[in-house]
Amino acid sequence: MTTASKVINNTGRISDETRQRVLAAADELRFVPNPHARSLHTGRTSIVGALILDSKAQRFAMPLIIGADTALSEINLSMIACDAKGDLDRARSLVWMLRQRSVDGLIVIGEHQQAWPSLSEEIDRPVIYVHGETTDRDDTVYVPDDQGGMRMVVDHLVRTGRRQFLHITGPRRSRAAQQRVVGLRAELKRADAELVAPVVYGEWSQRWAREPTSELLRKYPQVDAIICGSDQIATGVADAIVGSGRTIPYDVALTGFDNWVVFAEEMEPPLTTVDMNIEQLGAHAAEALSAAMNGAVIQPGVHRRPCSLILRASTIGAAGPSTAAAMMAN
Amino acid sequence: MTTASKVINNTGRISDETRQRVLAAADELRFVPNPHARSLHTGRTSIVGALILDSKAQRFAMPLIIGADTALSEINLSMIACDAKGDLDRARSLVWMLRQRSVDGLIVIGEHQQAWPSLSEEIDRPVIYVHGETTDRDDTVYVPDDQGGMRMVVDHLVRTGRRQFLHITGPRRSRAAQQRVVGLRAELKRADAELVAPVVYGEWSQRWAREPTSELLRKYPQVDAIICGSDQIATGVADAIVGSGRTIPYDVALTGFDNWVVFAEEMEPPLTTVDMNIEQLGAHAAEALSAAMNGAVIQPGVHRRPCSLILRASTIGAAGPSTAAAMMAN
Repeated sequence: MTTASKVINNTGRISDETRQRVLAAADELRFVPNPHARSLHTGRTSIVGALILDSKAQRFAMPLIIGADTALSEINLSMIACDAKGDLDRARSLVWMLRQRSVDGLIVIGEHQQAWPSLSEEIDRPVIYVHGETTDRDDTVYVPDDQGGMRMVVDHLVRTGRRQFLHITGPRRSRAAQQRVVGLRAELKRADAELVAPVVYGEWSQRWAREPTSELLRKYPQVDAIICGSDQIATGVADAIVGSGRTIPYDVALTGFDNWVVFAEEMEPPLTTVDMNIEQLGAHAAEALSAAMNGAVIQPGVHRRPCSLILRASTIGAAGPSTAAAMMAN
Repeated sequence: MTTASKVINNTGRISDETRQRVLAAADELRFVPNPHARSLHTGRTSIVGALILDSKAQRFAMPLIIGADTALSEINLSMIACDAKGDLDRARSLVWMLRQRSVDGLIVIGEHQQAWPSLSEEIDRPVIYVHGETTDRDDTVYVPDDQGGMRMVVDHLVRTGRRQFLHITGPRRSRAAQQRVVGLRAELKRADAELVAPVVYGEWSQRWAREPTSELLRKYPQVDAIICGSDQIATGVADAIVGSGRTIPYDVALTGFDNWVVFAEEMEPPLTTVDMNIEQLGAHAAEALSAAMNGAVIQPGVHRRPCSLILRASTIGAAGPSTAAAMMAN
């Protein structure tokens, strides 16, 4: 194999300087390796499929794609992206199309509200699922650790002296909402604390959240912290808290989930919330897929990846980043 | 060419029934055409590149990708997606990578705040730019008609009896903000109306928008309509209007731009706004690229695609969809 060939195909041991020189020369000559001839030789296309099951229902499709693509591009793999638009038949057709394209592997970007049927039988290449479970236990799935994220929220609120909690969240059928409630109950139990009222299930909507919050604050005036299932819900809850004449965080501390900055950073005061580290989740799925493509055995089952707690003024007495930074350091 | 081959390659005239039968048989046999052998024969890969210049700065990257991919998949083209993360060198490397993959054409998803250098010289395949201009007039660019969208807003407000206007928008350097101001001034002039105060430039942020709005309402109590450069800005402006003791739309009508439903539909009252029809814009770019790949000459320059005005209760006296529908019908 020539030096140039080693550089172009990114194989062999070549100094960075040599690599740069060869690439510059190749660029000047407009030399482009023929990937078809190459793939007939190696049996690989270096292309990975990324199937989004429902881009409308999965708000995180873009950061998942970006995270996965960034990780793949670092190892010279490209990604063919497509969207099944919530239609299982369309999803199967797209897997068929990706087989026709001879992709080396497949990432399925799921839907976090509900589990979907597995697509692994449709293609004889490694398949990794991300941010959405399947109904098949043999699949490998990476999801955010919703339970762990919510435990961090409760732990933080308890440590800052809150004891009288409400939890207002999305639809009861949502797996994300369910997981967060499991984490909430576990951490409340560990802290020997309780909710002052049953969990309020509803919609992922600030508009919806306003009314039940106003009612709950009238009925349970002792509430000192409202834990929300999403940042959108927290935005509506904040309106209701302020409307009741209370201040955030002095009378009532408030938390969200998502770290969707167009809500969390724009709220008055800015919102303490959970970041699910979505880009890293996409990158992690891509790295697992790449390992599987190289013959590694990837553990089946649902793998929960850690979330981060982002502290802002909605839970910490003295507003401002210095306090947040000090608390983060503890 | 056999019937099966015509079906698999999607060429020739075949009845739908025959097509279904052959595909079913092929599926049963797990027959997958070898795309490498095929592309060596036709000189085409049927793969299109989609380069996002900056996914963080381009909130519409996902609907643009979805719109383009849907249009491409209908004509059996696939899309390799990648993100330059706002880095021009990275963008050039990705075009090099896409050349290595022998894509048949390239869609560049631009950044609507500013023009980027052209990438067309980097690849000898058709290139179409969408939702972001380049500095090269020979490029073909599809963008939303921001001017036309804003003219629809002003026309609607004038027709519903408003005369005392404010305009609160994003950064002065933003091309989208500039275009919208041009449309605003043109339509105000046509209607023989004026702004009661100079255009207020600032940030695409509800948090930022609150304070200047409160001040302006104190200084210009006669204001009967506030036209905002985005739905996020309108959300902050709404808080300030309500905080001043006025009601929307009775005292002050309010409009946004974007039809970002997590703001526009969730606001109280829901927001009249402009929809830039982003998915259709992506689809249109993909169709133009496909035509160019088939030898059509695509007109260079900036093509502005129509926006839609979405009427909601923030501008129309009696709230509710029936009024909106009645007004839409006029």
